[in-house]
Amino acid sequence: MRFASFFGDRSRIFCSRYTFSELLLVFAGACGGLVAYADAKSEQDVRTFQGPTKKKVLVLGTGWGGTSFLRNIDTSLYDVQVISPRNYFAFTPLLPSVTCGTVEARSIVEPIRNIIGKKGGDIKFWDAECFEIDPTKKKVLCRYNAVTNSFGTAEFSVDYDYLVIAVGGKEVEDATRIRRSVIDCFERACLPNLDDEERKKSLHFVIVGGGPTGVEFAAELHDFVVEDLSKLYPSVYDLVKITVIGADEHILTMFDKRVFTFAEDKFKRDGIDLKTGYRVVKVSENDITMVSKATGEKSVTYGMAVWSTGIGTRPVILKFMMQIGQGHRRVLATDEWLRVCGCDGVYAIGDCASIGQRKVMEDIAEIFKVADKDNSGTLTVREIQDILQDVIIRYPQVDLYLKSKHMSDIVELLQESKSVAKVEDIEVDIEEFKRALANVDSQVKTLPATAQVAAQQGNYLARCFNKMKDLDEHPEGPLRITEAGRHNFLPFRYKHLGQFAPLGGEQAAAQLPGDWISIGHSTQWLWYSVYASKQVSWRTRVLVVFDWTKRFIFGRDSSCL
Amino acid sequence: MRFASFFGDRSRIFCSRYTFSELLLVFAGACGGLVAYADAKSEQDVRTFQGPTKKKVLVLGTGWGGTSFLRNIDTSLYDVQVISPRNYFAFTPLLPSVTCGTVEARSIVEPIRNIIGKKGGDIKFWDAECFEIDPTKKKVLCRYNAVTNSFGTAEFSVDYDYLVIAVGGKEVEDATRIRRSVIDCFERACLPNLDDEERKKSLHFVIVGGGPTGVEFAAELHDFVVEDLSKLYPSVYDLVKITVIGADEHILTMFDKRVFTFAEDKFKRDGIDLKTGYRVVKVSENDITMVSKATGEKSVTYGMAVWSTGIGTRPVILKFMMQIGQGHRRVLATDEWLRVCGCDGVYAIGDCASIGQRKVMEDIAEIFKVADKDNSGTLTVREIQDILQDVIIRYPQVDLYLKSKHMSDIVELLQESKSVAKVEDIEVDIEEFKRALANVDSQVKTLPATAQVAAQQGNYLARCFNKMKDLDEHPEGPLRITEAGRHNFLPFRYKHLGQFAPLGGEQAAAQLPGDWISIGHSTQWLWYSVYASKQVSWRTRVLVVFDWTKRFIFGRDSSCL
Repeated sequence: MRFASFFGDRSRIFCSRYTFSELLLVFAGACGGLVAYADAKSEQDVRTFQGPTKKKVLVLGTGWGGTSFLRNIDTSLYDVQVISPRNYFAFTPLLPSVTCGTVEARSIVEPIRNIIGKKGGDIKFWDAECFEIDPTKKKVLCRYNAVTNSFGTAEFSVDYDYLVIAVGGKEVEDATRIRRSVIDCFERACLPNLDDEERKKSLHFVIVGGGPTGVEFAAELHDFVVEDLSKLYPSVYDLVKITVIGADEHILTMFDKRVFTFAEDKFKRDGIDLKTGYRVVKVSENDITMVSKATGEKSVTYGMAVWSTGIGTRPVILKFMMQIGQGHRRVLATDEWLRVCGCDGVYAIGDCASIGQRKVMEDIAEIFKVADKDNSGTLTVREIQDILQDVIIRYPQVDLYLKSKHMSDIVELLQESKSVAKVEDIEVDIEEFKRALANVDSQVKTLPATAQVAAQQGNYLARCFNKMKDLDEHPEGPLRITEAGRHNFLPFRYKHLGQFAPLGGEQAAAQLPGDWISIGHSTQWLWYSVYASKQVSWRTRVLVVFDWTKRFIFGRDSSCL
Repeated sequence: MRFASFFGDRSRIFCSRYTFSELLLVFAGACGGLVAYADAKSEQDVRTFQGPTKKKVLVLGTGWGGTSFLRNIDTSLYDVQVISPRNYFAFTPLLPSVTCGTVEARSIVEPIRNIIGKKGGDIKFWDAECFEIDPTKKKVLCRYNAVTNSFGTAEFSVDYDYLVIAVGGKEVEDATRIRRSVIDCFERACLPNLDDEERKKSLHFVIVGGGPTGVEFAAELHDFVVEDLSKLYPSVYDLVKITVIGADEHILTMFDKRVFTFAEDKFKRDGIDLKTGYRVVKVSENDITMVSKATGEKSVTYGMAVWSTGIGTRPVILKFMMQIGQGHRRVLATDEWLRVCGCDGVYAIGDCASIGQRKVMEDIAEIFKVADKDNSGTLTVREIQDILQDVIIRYPQVDLYLKSKHMSDIVELLQESKSVAKVEDIEVDIEEFKRALANVDSQVKTLPATAQVAAQQGNYLARCFNKMKDLDEHPEGPLRITEAGRHNFLPFRYKHLGQFAPLGGEQAAAQLPGDWISIGHSTQWLWYSVYASKQVSWRTRVLVVFDWTKRFIFGRDSSCL
């Protein structure tokens, strides 16, 4: 063992620290133990002479946000550590496929040590659960929970200079538990001592939530039942019922009307019961109670219910929010630079956080004052155009509002508001300025809890960290409105790359930027290509494609594992 | 859904119950609902007019024994039902590969409904755990335990005419738990708050048992550590230690000396610590205490211990053994026809049972009496040869004893015992007969708890059930020694097809019948081919081969799933 490891270490050293001439030297000396020892010593020296200690960055979580940060952070600038109770990264957009065995859980996970190992082993990973964050002492308390052996609980603390909270919300275990539960319902329904009502109850699958995840699960479940379980459980197949309960008037409301109309029609043809416009008010052991404006209260018994609306917040985050005065919130509030409001050096990304976008109307007087360079009490077109770029960067809702009005410029807005024919003549006072911008804040949007958002945030934050020193001297951000100077960084801006909604039966819908809509079988193939290409490693890519092929040939496995 | 299912049902009817002319009729009428109804009715009639009700055979367990029985039983003769808390069959010989992720758990399981479905759906399967057997009322009590949902516990009872107990002893869950535990030990050893002693303890893997399973696990673990984990956990790799504790002087004592010498040499080269001749006397949370004749008592701390010697008996079997007066035993005792001693219509196969081979010396007086046709008080060679075949079938140890003495015939044995030159002159009285056969019972052997034995027993038992009626009239078994006539069936006879011992590093040993020994890399390839070909379905065959290929290319996955 020792021998293999020795060479392993050496080859890693080659990659990371030595120039070509040094390489030659080490090769030449590789026959002598003494030279090898000297070499090992020089490695230590390199470490010792690294100059002032690097700042410690601690990342909590190995989901999309955390992993994306780790892949992009420059480890020559920071001492990076990661803590997570999961020693792998999971490709969560494929979790709905895992729930029915279309893809295996192991095919969508990659050990985090593989991912950070590609950065030369400079990042330290600890498989533990953080249970307390102490932002005043700048440390976190962690616990190692061995699930399978007798080590018991071990606690330790880790210091940080910067903390990146990226604890996420979706779990692979949940998906495999759902898979098992579906089969349990079928096996239970086959037992000899049940009457038909009990069998029907056992085979009633209720999905609460008409969003993309709920809809994708319903579609996967329907395919699983029709394509695979129907052959294995023919005696109870007719009793299966799938119900989707959604609070809105339609499912998939975040998509274009063409998409949700197609989806609803397809689900109706498939025999999936859509209960849209219903709000679930109670879930008991036996039934689910829901209320609709039209028909009032209604209860249904169920064999299995899947809750796919909203994401639970982890206890450690709830506790942390209490500590920093955010106890009334559901997730952590950050500013537009992803800094957690109310404490220093703490950042939060992904599902556990939401950006509190500053409103234009809160700052309207200051904006006016900054723009009014000549202190005339009115703004000319020239003055407005001078500050426009900074305002749009600081308040992206302005841009969205203009786009929603099909306007190219804020001046058009003022023009509309003042009804002036010639642009150059426009001059507005503070009241007119307020009136013109009165509705822009309606365009402030909460970002969805998706992989895309988390990954972009992780990437953005790593870039900020990497440039921190440079930007201290040469800020790239927009003008500060309430103070002098500029913000160091550009605020985070989410770039939506489109969204898929797989609908089962080898059909999918996609809505891409520019309201480009694609629906049908070809979209499902687009989905396959995009999801295969987005995998984090060649290993998972091969596994996922193999799983899809396997499903085509052999169907899905129904073993209760 | 309903439509597809309707046709599904129809086509099944075609296959199983209709002649060609009836088929035509049903096809012709398939357009009218009324005709379809008439058809459905006629199906019911067929069921009603089936003559006397078929006897009910109830099988407990879906392991090697149960599945092999189900695949071979003639369902036109019996009403067959199966109860198991596992709705799949697992290819247990590959479980050691699952413990380290060389093969995935799902690749070696096949839903039992797939297997019984190939017999036309006549076998009923219930996913439940039998918790009590009532041999007087001929029924079993079962419990459905939903792991994942809120159905709670449901109990029901099932009647039987014949009960086949095949509950096995090995579980897929155990293998996946071991896999997780190995990674847990590594993650734990990397934590920042440990000293070197604690890290070493965490990475000390102890395997108790020097049999094929323990040895294969040790080899798999060594490969996993050297080939995969060394890259991901370089900082603690040097602290890993693997120890195998065996009670005998050597590991793999059931194999030829060439095999265990090779295995021991290879393990020593690999740095695996072999503690042979040690008996484990205590396992506490922190350490394992063992005793050897040579060095006395010794304790070692461990991070993970795997117990691979002997198989636990399930509570339901222990309870049943108490009921039928076998409470002092470890597993169920059956006779040579696999009938459980002490109760009627109950059979037991596989790991949960052991055959109590009747001893020659117990029946020696009766054998002499039956052979001595002329009641002369002595046996001639002719008389002995007349009964020889029946004796060898009833007492296979006679044959084994002759083979061990390199004799072709029992007469040679008598000749040796009496020192007579000419064979024809031999004539023995009862005392001489006893003396000659005094040692044959030393060859009575307990069958190992392997897949091979269970599968052959299941197959044998199904054949007996299928021929039961015929053989009532025309018995094929050997002469009854204590009563008149013949036994209906030939007793079960195990045919050993050889055994493999994978030793890691792409090397294996094999011992095939006729003491044919094969060791090395080519044997590992033989192992691959045999294990691939023995898979129960093309699906699992493809999956297992894919897993092997995947391991060659990408290594084993170390995600804690």
